Amino acid sequence: MVAVQKDFSRYDRKLEFILRTAARIFAEKGYHSTSMRDISRETGVSLAGLYYYCQSKDELLFLIQDNCFGRVLERLEGRLTETHDPVERLRLLIENHLSFFAANMAEMKVLSHEADSLAGEMHEKVSGKKQQYTQVVRRALADVAESRTEKDRRPVDLTIATFALFGMMNWIYNWYDPQGAMGVSDLVENIARLFLSGFLGEACDEELNFSNPAEHEPFHMWRGTKIESMNT
Amino acid sequence: MVAVQKDFSRYDRKLEFILRTAARIFAEKGYHSTSMRDISRETGVSLAGLYYYCQSKDELLFLIQDNCFGRVLERLEGRLTETHDPVERLRLLIENHLSFFAANMAEMKVLSHEADSLAGEMHEKVSGKKQQYTQVVRRALADVAESRTEKDRRPVDLTIATFALFGMMNWIYNWYDPQGAMGVSDLVENIARLFLSGFLGEACDEELNFSNPAEHEPFHMWRGTKIESMNT
Repeated sequence: MVAVQKDFSRYDRKLEFILRTAARIFAEKGYHSTSMRDISRETGVSLAGLYYYCQSKDELLFLIQDNCFGRVLERLEGRLTETHDPVERLRLLIENHLSFFAANMAEMKVLSHEADSLAGEMHEKVSGKKQQYTQVVRRALADVAESRTEKDRRPVDLTIATFALFGMMNWIYNWYDPQGAMGVSDLVENIARLFLSGFLGEACDEELNFSNPAEHEPFHMWRGTKIESMNT
Repeated sequence: MVAVQKDFSRYDRKLEFILRTAARIFAEKGYHSTSMRDISRETGVSLAGLYYYCQSKDELLFLIQDNCFGRVLERLEGRLTETHDPVERLRLLIENHLSFFAANMAEMKVLSHEADSLAGEMHEKVSGKKQQYTQVVRRALADVAESRTEKDRRPVDLTIATFALFGMMNWIYNWYDPQGAMGVSDLVENIARLFLSGFLGEACDEELNFSNPAEHEPFHMWRGTKIESMNT
């Protein structure tokens, strides 16, 4: 039994290595311009080997997108159990999204640029997860807005606020350098202050508790980082 | 002489029709997956005819991107002469960007997704204009921040604020329907309030003068709207 588990784990790690490499190539060249031969060359896995791990290039894109939304949502739901305070929950959400995607920028670009590259059931499944994630974000914003009803300010439209927040966060793949001088914690803190103060119409710097830098730690989507040379 | 001018204007209108159609196809299929034959089919202009207007598919993409940044920047610079008030200038900038791109969503997607599809001199020229536009936005934000130095709030990082604003505004091509129930003026008003209040750390609803809905009018990049059937 141990041997079987070990084999399974090796299979998973190899698949993740293939997905991570494919995400990088899709981000660089675009999905439609990438061939399975390109992925074979970059991974060092033979074409026959690739087809042992996935049935088609479509399935690779599906697995990347499905894993991405699945992981960021799962991680968020875990963290949202920590507190019932609406502002704190929104802060956690911004932190979770930014630290996840700052560590997975190629995947973020693939999610954005290849949103319509899949069809049929695969497209439906990914769109469903994306919609589910969008609903969680919208709900978090609605909770913040409701918790502040005593203020007489005209609230910002919830749909616009939801997509404005996604826009602020997702745009980082166009300009942010995770290896550069600006740390993920700076990114998180500034975007959280900018968005929350704007959404609430008041400075809410003090409410934002940025005391735990560990929360901003980059979270790599693919577990293996030592398998770059996994050329079997 | 009149005849020559008339011919020139007809040439311009026909080129704009080709560019507008090409932008729509690039947005739908991606630049690399689009052939000159696709553009010929959609425009009803023969391949030979297309090459009379441009030398290559690259040149089409260049003309779309160069025109886009050129027009939005030129229009902004015209409007910024209207006032010296930093908050008012930032509002004008947000209005200008959103009303321009809400009317040119296909072009916006092409700017975003095909930012690295050109090479050499063409890429350099477009990047230069993009950088110039980014600098104008950054300067506008710096002016707002400086005009409020009396406040003891830690300012939002200027680089993050600049790209967060671009992200909020540019992300609309992923969700906003210009033909839908939400008008451009709602979009402009909500995003301006959200961003400015967040950047200043205080509600600035009253400072934002939304009295002139004409300012939110969509601004189509291509002049001709009656030349869809220009199939000669």
